Amino acid sequence: MKAMHFELDARLAADTHPLARFALCELRLMDDANYPWLILVPRVVGARDLIDLDPQQRHQLSDETDRSARLLRDAFRPHKLNVAALGNVVPQLHVHVIARFEEDPAWPAPVWGRVEADPYAPEALIERIALLQGLLRG
Amino acid sequence: MKAMHFELDARLAADTHPLARFALCELRLMDDANYPWLILVPRVVGARDLIDLDPQQRHQLSDETDRSARLLRDAFRPHKLNVAALGNVVPQLHVHVIARFEEDPAWPAPVWGRVEADPYAPEALIERIALLQGLLRG
Repeated sequence: MKAMHFELDARLAADTHPLARFALCELRLMDDANYPWLILVPRVVGARDLIDLDPQQRHQLSDETDRSARLLRDAFRPHKLNVAALGNVVPQLHVHVIARFEEDPAWPAPVWGRVEADPYAPEALIERIALLQGLLRG
Repeated sequence: MKAMHFELDARLAADTHPLARFALCELRLMDDANYPWLILVPRVVGARDLIDLDPQQRHQLSDETDRSARLLRDAFRPHKLNVAALGNVVPQLHVHVIARFEEDPAWPAPVWGRVEADPYAPEALIERIALLQGLLRG
């Protein structure tokens, strides 16, 4: 039986922490202190690829991606922003928005498969989420 | 002096072949026969990140990305579509649209930095471009 309501993929749920609920997407923080790394997950049942969204949803995702990228820019002043919808491992449609620095452990390569994730310590996680939520409210 | 007209980055020009001119973007074929791989380059002088586009340009880029992804889907029936704006090496804003297969040489990892590019043989390049341009016209 196919779920008729949106459910976050179990692996995405395990690897990320909730940050905000946008009009279309769940905004989550990747639990990897190597990079400021956000994940957007559109609440669209069964969506795997960007082409599974209708044009209105796509434009909304573009707007929410822009908002997330500006959030990382404002919070961290990165050298570059990486935005990607890959999903080869976790098929549920999700968009990575990652702040990149010339000193980060994967630069200039993409982050995937380079170094092991470095989960946030509890205090650092609380601080990071507070910072980002504060900017979102601001 | 900053160029006041759009010029394609020299590395992008060297690594890709022209396919089509969309309203916002140049559509180009990556010269790597390992994967059906398109590159969209918005003709916006000085743009490095998605957040450098205005909302109308962003939505247009979303539409042209969708069109490019559907083109790859129709031509190759891939298992997954990967879409990414990275630009850590080539800073000019460009979007990768890549058809992925469970049998391709990088699966399930992202394609970057996995295997050496495999440039098309001249006949294969002509055939590939003709196929894609035919579908775009159709």
